[in-house]
Amino acid sequence: MSPTLTIRPAAPTDDDAIWRILEPTFRAGETYPIPREVSRADALAYWRTPGNWVFVAEDGGAIVGTYYLRANTRGGGDHVANCGYMVAPDAMGRGVARAMCAHSLTEAKARGFAAMQFNFVIASNERAVRLWQSMGFEIVGRLPAAFRHPRLGPVDAFVMVRTL
Amino acid sequence: MSPTLTIRPAAPTDDDAIWRILEPTFRAGETYPIPREVSRADALAYWRTPGNWVFVAEDGGAIVGTYYLRANTRGGGDHVANCGYMVAPDAMGRGVARAMCAHSLTEAKARGFAAMQFNFVIASNERAVRLWQSMGFEIVGRLPAAFRHPRLGPVDAFVMVRTL
Repeated sequence: MSPTLTIRPAAPTDDDAIWRILEPTFRAGETYPIPREVSRADALAYWRTPGNWVFVAEDGGAIVGTYYLRANTRGGGDHVANCGYMVAPDAMGRGVARAMCAHSLTEAKARGFAAMQFNFVIASNERAVRLWQSMGFEIVGRLPAAFRHPRLGPVDAFVMVRTL
Repeated sequence: MSPTLTIRPAAPTDDDAIWRILEPTFRAGETYPIPREVSRADALAYWRTPGNWVFVAEDGGAIVGTYYLRANTRGGGDHVANCGYMVAPDAMGRGVARAMCAHSLTEAKARGFAAMQFNFVIASNERAVRLWQSMGFEIVGRLPAAFRHPRLGPVDAFVMVRTL
């Protein structure tokens, strides 16, 4: 991880930088169940869904990653958090996702969450699966052929959980 | 199942009848991850979330059940449907849930869905778990202590899937 990486809450003025990160990932359509043709407004509304806390990771003045943290469900299930993370393509392999995940675990615990759940980790995204496993997440469910990968066709998705 | 049970799309004028079904179940807080103190407006907005198709089951002129059908995710995951079902307390045990589930499987298939997933079947709701299993759903995930049951404390929730 870069020693100059900092993670802070997103400001409204970060929308352009967030969209520059979301756009290539959503357009590729390989890791999120979001339409590849999603508009900027729709994508930002999804990332900033009411109830989401949104953060950005900055390195040397550039925003290189973003994540959201939210309660996965309401009522009797609102002690379980959920997050989505995204790293700028040109910042991959520098530990940004790991740093954001570690940050999110701390933030979630500070907000009183008891566990964190990822609902839809696409099995072909092996790098992410391994990273989450190395961060203490376990696969608790496998959703058969739940995702149509643009190159690989139908692939499974995992539900992953860890306690905080 | 009652021979006079019919299932039809919900009309806006069905909101009062739908709320009479939702209210006692949400207030009990034992089967849905929704705040027990949820307001009528909030509950109906949840049930009628944009993108949900909402149906009601009628028997002898009375609405005895309701369900929604939707895509569980978007983009590359939008071939998997999701439903939520609810039966009026005084109509339990008459096959209304089973009839609505059968109806929803047909409706989902007609809309082009390839599978149906339930994201959060609370393990203590054994009647529902058995019913969904008898309708062809398999438990594909177990979410440990994902739900705080008002009487039982922390209970697991299941992810259940079947193909269409």
